[in-house]
Amino acid sequence: MNAPRSTRSAPTREQFAALDAADRLAPLRQLFELPPEVIYLDGNSLGPLPKATADRVQRTLRDEWGRGLITSWNHAGWIDLPRRLGDKIARLVGAAPGELVVADSTSVNLFKVLWAAVTLQRQAARRRVILSERSNFPTDLYIAQSIADTHDCELRLVAADALAGALDEHTAVLLLTHVNYRTGAMHDMAALTRAAHDAGALAIWDLAHSAGAVPVDLNGCGADFAVGCGYKYLNGGPGAPAFVWLHARHAALFEQPLTGWMGHASPFQFSPEYRGAGGITRALCGTPPVLSMAALECGLDCVLAAAPLGGMRALRDKSLALTRGFADLVDARCAGHGLAVVSPRIDAHRGSQVCLSHQTDGRDEGAYAIVQALIARGVIGDFRAGEPGVPDILRFGFTPLYLRFVDVWDAVEHLRQVMHAGEWRQPRFKQRHAVT
Amino acid sequence: MNAPRSTRSAPTREQFAALDAADRLAPLRQLFELPPEVIYLDGNSLGPLPKATADRVQRTLRDEWGRGLITSWNHAGWIDLPRRLGDKIARLVGAAPGELVVADSTSVNLFKVLWAAVTLQRQAARRRVILSERSNFPTDLYIAQSIADTHDCELRLVAADALAGALDEHTAVLLLTHVNYRTGAMHDMAALTRAAHDAGALAIWDLAHSAGAVPVDLNGCGADFAVGCGYKYLNGGPGAPAFVWLHARHAALFEQPLTGWMGHASPFQFSPEYRGAGGITRALCGTPPVLSMAALECGLDCVLAAAPLGGMRALRDKSLALTRGFADLVDARCAGHGLAVVSPRIDAHRGSQVCLSHQTDGRDEGAYAIVQALIARGVIGDFRAGEPGVPDILRFGFTPLYLRFVDVWDAVEHLRQVMHAGEWRQPRFKQRHAVT
Repeated sequence: MNAPRSTRSAPTREQFAALDAADRLAPLRQLFELPPEVIYLDGNSLGPLPKATADRVQRTLRDEWGRGLITSWNHAGWIDLPRRLGDKIARLVGAAPGELVVADSTSVNLFKVLWAAVTLQRQAARRRVILSERSNFPTDLYIAQSIADTHDCELRLVAADALAGALDEHTAVLLLTHVNYRTGAMHDMAALTRAAHDAGALAIWDLAHSAGAVPVDLNGCGADFAVGCGYKYLNGGPGAPAFVWLHARHAALFEQPLTGWMGHASPFQFSPEYRGAGGITRALCGTPPVLSMAALECGLDCVLAAAPLGGMRALRDKSLALTRGFADLVDARCAGHGLAVVSPRIDAHRGSQVCLSHQTDGRDEGAYAIVQALIARGVIGDFRAGEPGVPDILRFGFTPLYLRFVDVWDAVEHLRQVMHAGEWRQPRFKQRHAVT
Repeated sequence: MNAPRSTRSAPTREQFAALDAADRLAPLRQLFELPPEVIYLDGNSLGPLPKATADRVQRTLRDEWGRGLITSWNHAGWIDLPRRLGDKIARLVGAAPGELVVADSTSVNLFKVLWAAVTLQRQAARRRVILSERSNFPTDLYIAQSIADTHDCELRLVAADALAGALDEHTAVLLLTHVNYRTGAMHDMAALTRAAHDAGALAIWDLAHSAGAVPVDLNGCGADFAVGCGYKYLNGGPGAPAFVWLHARHAALFEQPLTGWMGHASPFQFSPEYRGAGGITRALCGTPPVLSMAALECGLDCVLAAAPLGGMRALRDKSLALTRGFADLVDARCAGHGLAVVSPRIDAHRGSQVCLSHQTDGRDEGAYAIVQALIARGVIGDFRAGEPGVPDILRFGFTPLYLRFVDVWDAVEHLRQVMHAGEWRQPRFKQRHAVT
């Protein structure tokens, strides 16, 4: 499955439609409620609503909560949701059943595993460095700074290409987000985990932009800990619960400080002393949010519906064809307007998104306004502000579960029109909102 | 509003029906979906489904998420949910607008404020004791033990009546649950907060069994921090998000280690350094769980619907009449079967629940089986196992929002029948489930 390469004569919409006709994953689009007037290229920020979710949440509300009331903790299996959903995510990220649970937020889960990792490493007194990437997602850096402050460690931030070289005998933990939230650049998880281990460090991976988007093999890589997000490519809904995983070799010694009752070996004995459950169950803290979990399960089931069609490998092939097709079409059809592809062009280095910059004489110009003009046309991507050395970007996520090749073609055609007519220069597109 | 006192001739159902006829709060029952065959005395564990919730969650799913997609963070006000719901809870617990937010679980929130309180107190080096009650809810003790372990403190547990005497120059924090989850015994928040302050300690209150059930005046008491639960008397649904409050005098110095992006002064600047927002916003961590928040708001609106009818004061008056009526009826109509009221008989010492023990010759006997026999009859309470010095109990919560006086009478009549016929001795009622 390959998008037509950019050539002197750009590919036609008919050629993209032909790719849809040949796409074995095309029926999966029917699992989602997508507004017909929208081309949704922001599933890396918030996945769309699965068709099954509304009914499932209604059943959870009316039957399980409304009629079953308190008995549903047993009878409807509420108490098992963190583990049951965890086992489903495990299938998507190369983890084994019983190794992964759904709980809390990504930030809270990162706090747990980073605390655990630093504590494990404190037996080696010289290891006081948490190494991460300067352009890691900010909330990960905030949590890492907090752990560094409270554990007398140093948070060392370097550029992506300097990571391997920065690992040394002082490194306690290598903390990375697998796919960069801004650029879509993807780390080599196996190689960096190996490099961390060779240096005596532990490797923690944030899979926020990976789970459900690219193949991940946590056990195959021998990673130590992982966390990830439920509301992006897993389609769990706004603020869906997150997940947390640890390698089986850490199960016996794993401890984390958010020692709520759901991580107790016998939570319903109500004993006054904490006795942590074994393994990943110890990562649980408070009572699971059942309504949000029910919605997340529907999102997971959409990703798992690809299993008989080739699973994550097939999704990845289509994702690469979509992102490659988009980047090549932008080159071919939007040339001369200052747009440039920021995301890696090499497939193995790219997640499931493509980012563009818009610069004139090397200075950021229209990224924000162009995104707004596209949204006004129903093409939903998002804007991420730059920082010194990093341009403002237009960010487009491509989710192979529900995007068609013609969506890619149409999105670029909208972009071409926005640029060609100077539409983005209209004042209404320049007014900034507090949140995008 | 008073339930008839127990007399030689027990009150009749007609007398209880007359109390319903005179009850100004009676119309509030219509706000809830209650199975007609059920008398629900477990709202202190999981509040029932408000009628508005299903439609509201559907709108959030279909309109805001499904159609609005990512734009709903702005357009549907998702980003403001933690503060908007916080302001609603603030009205129920004597807090001011902007002082309270909804986030995470009770356990996670307790971790934040206990960390903050211990840190504030570490300037006084001798203060290394976290003082709490031995029969506090276990998850609070687990979190307190974790904070003690990580801050080189001691968790000191004493009996409720020994708390005031145990406050001394070593006490950093007094951590209490206002209403005991097991017995329903209620602390004098004003007096104990004053005693803590007189001893130089800070006071943290867990309002899990108070918010929406009894009047609370956090600012009036001058309390320091508070946390609470969304799924009990606030009717937010299973695992609903929790809340956290701090007194304005701590707003400037408040710091907590779960430094996720929602607590950042400018979260959408995506700056790599954490700059905490001021005040209670700094207690936020990850992305808010929108579906669960939408459900919680419906639950809160049910409690706030009592405001024009007298608010928490009127709810408290009815709650006391319900619990007093239940205890007196059990005395009058179930005598001679080994049942005893464990909860305080003095109104000011009792929350919104009544607990019974069932003992023969001073030994626990049928509490579990009696609860099961009642559940089989549609009277839903719950069982909490005892421990040395504390009996097994039958626990009944009374929520004045939706319970009628005839529900109390009918529940006791069921209990009388279960005891009189020895129904609870049937083997099917003795088989234990893992979770109740």
